[in-house]
Amino acid sequence: MRLFNKVAIIGTGLIGGSMALAIKKNGLAHQIIGVSRHKNTLIWARKSRVIDKGSQDLSIIQDADLVVLATPVNTILKLADTVVKFINKDCIVTDVGSTKKEIVSKLSKIFPNYVGSHPLAGSEKCGITNVQADIFKDSLCILTPTKNTPPNALKKIKSLWEQLGARVVFLNPDTHDRILSFVSHLPHAIAFSLIGTAPDKYLKFGANGLKDTTRIALSDSRLWVDIFLSNRKNMLKSIESFQNNLSRIKSAINKRDEKTLIKILKKAKAKREILG
Amino acid sequence: MRLFNKVAIIGTGLIGGSMALAIKKNGLAHQIIGVSRHKNTLIWARKSRVIDKGSQDLSIIQDADLVVLATPVNTILKLADTVVKFINKDCIVTDVGSTKKEIVSKLSKIFPNYVGSHPLAGSEKCGITNVQADIFKDSLCILTPTKNTPPNALKKIKSLWEQLGARVVFLNPDTHDRILSFVSHLPHAIAFSLIGTAPDKYLKFGANGLKDTTRIALSDSRLWVDIFLSNRKNMLKSIESFQNNLSRIKSAINKRDEKTLIKILKKAKAKREILG
Repeated sequence: MRLFNKVAIIGTGLIGGSMALAIKKNGLAHQIIGVSRHKNTLIWARKSRVIDKGSQDLSIIQDADLVVLATPVNTILKLADTVVKFINKDCIVTDVGSTKKEIVSKLSKIFPNYVGSHPLAGSEKCGITNVQADIFKDSLCILTPTKNTPPNALKKIKSLWEQLGARVVFLNPDTHDRILSFVSHLPHAIAFSLIGTAPDKYLKFGANGLKDTTRIALSDSRLWVDIFLSNRKNMLKSIESFQNNLSRIKSAINKRDEKTLIKILKKAKAKREILG
Repeated sequence: MRLFNKVAIIGTGLIGGSMALAIKKNGLAHQIIGVSRHKNTLIWARKSRVIDKGSQDLSIIQDADLVVLATPVNTILKLADTVVKFINKDCIVTDVGSTKKEIVSKLSKIFPNYVGSHPLAGSEKCGITNVQADIFKDSLCILTPTKNTPPNALKKIKSLWEQLGARVVFLNPDTHDRILSFVSHLPHAIAFSLIGTAPDKYLKFGANGLKDTTRIALSDSRLWVDIFLSNRKNMLKSIESFQNNLSRIKSAINKRDEKTLIKILKKAKAKREILG
């Protein structure tokens, strides 16, 4: 079912490019435009039929009835003021940033038809060459409407994500950022710290445990610095909460407190089992 | 090539059971005996032809020319004094414990033909029903001979692991425990802490990042309490080193120090890339 006429995706990386491809495959738009700073990305995206037309120049987005901001968080915040100059007031705007409070606060003031999105999809791999049309299938997509979000824009964005295969849930931006700091942003900070801790010369003894635990440290550095700083207060809280937890394990090891240790480990295992 | 006549594996869990299966498939022994506390494990192992004979009674190991201790670390330490009563002085003994200093120190005094092994294989899954004959293929197996290890025992244990598909390296027990605390034991402590930190009601928002980072928290609790306590001093050091690393990230987030953050994250990513 066609939802949009002209969709403009700004930032054709893993998520933006995968959205383009999935929108095209599902026939949800008449035309898909890609905007990227990188000429080679656009050439690849056009050749691979991920987008219909691409440009490094934002003016190509005019007449779009959907604009998706799919760049790192900080760039979303910076681009908004320019993007608004090129689009009609009816154009629906969404973003796929991993933090929502700062973005929703700014973008909902700039765009009359704005809905914040956060698809919980993707991986440590980034860039247009890793796009997958089914990346959103069976994933969760969080939308963060506010009391001022136009119902029609919300309805269309919800429908878009559902047709891309995602299950949609609504959260307010504050709650989103608090939850994500624990289930996504903290694990990234931990993975970066953990691989940073292992002395270089020991790495050759690293097996699957170390590999899995630190896989997300392969993620794009710029992207994650933006996320950490945009979700600064929640990050500080979740890191502190983690530090307290680790200190309990450390203290139990120090005191040879077998009973406490087994209790902590069993509880952790039971919680991990919930994740599947 | 047959290396042994009668191999007795004490503890037919994931590693012990997989060794039995792999030894059998590769024709490395005439007979394989399994010892377990759990009757059902032995019934399953016999029916699935993982072992030739099984018993809950240690006396079944007599006349073995190879005994493998494949229980949790603490049980290896406890069983040694009993095992020695049943075997001949020529019997070669090895273990597959994840820590080596404490085990090698005790077992090399008890058994005249002892060689410590640590195959870096396995996963968070445990138990006889998860055995795989090729689990050691292309893995690393660390042997921890001392100056008193009989060359013939070392040669045979080395050959055993190589024929099971592992690449063998020698480390002294101290070095082994220090290295493993960073590349294996610390990541487990972190995974347990990380999943422990996430509030229960947030877990449904956990995606692949959280799943991968905490997968090893599904590991057996008893096994890991033993490892943490057996490698206590190194654990305390590696946790402290991790805590310092995480504090640097936290402090950079707190100060909005983008430059330091990007430096830390890029360095972490480059290190993770070495792991493959």
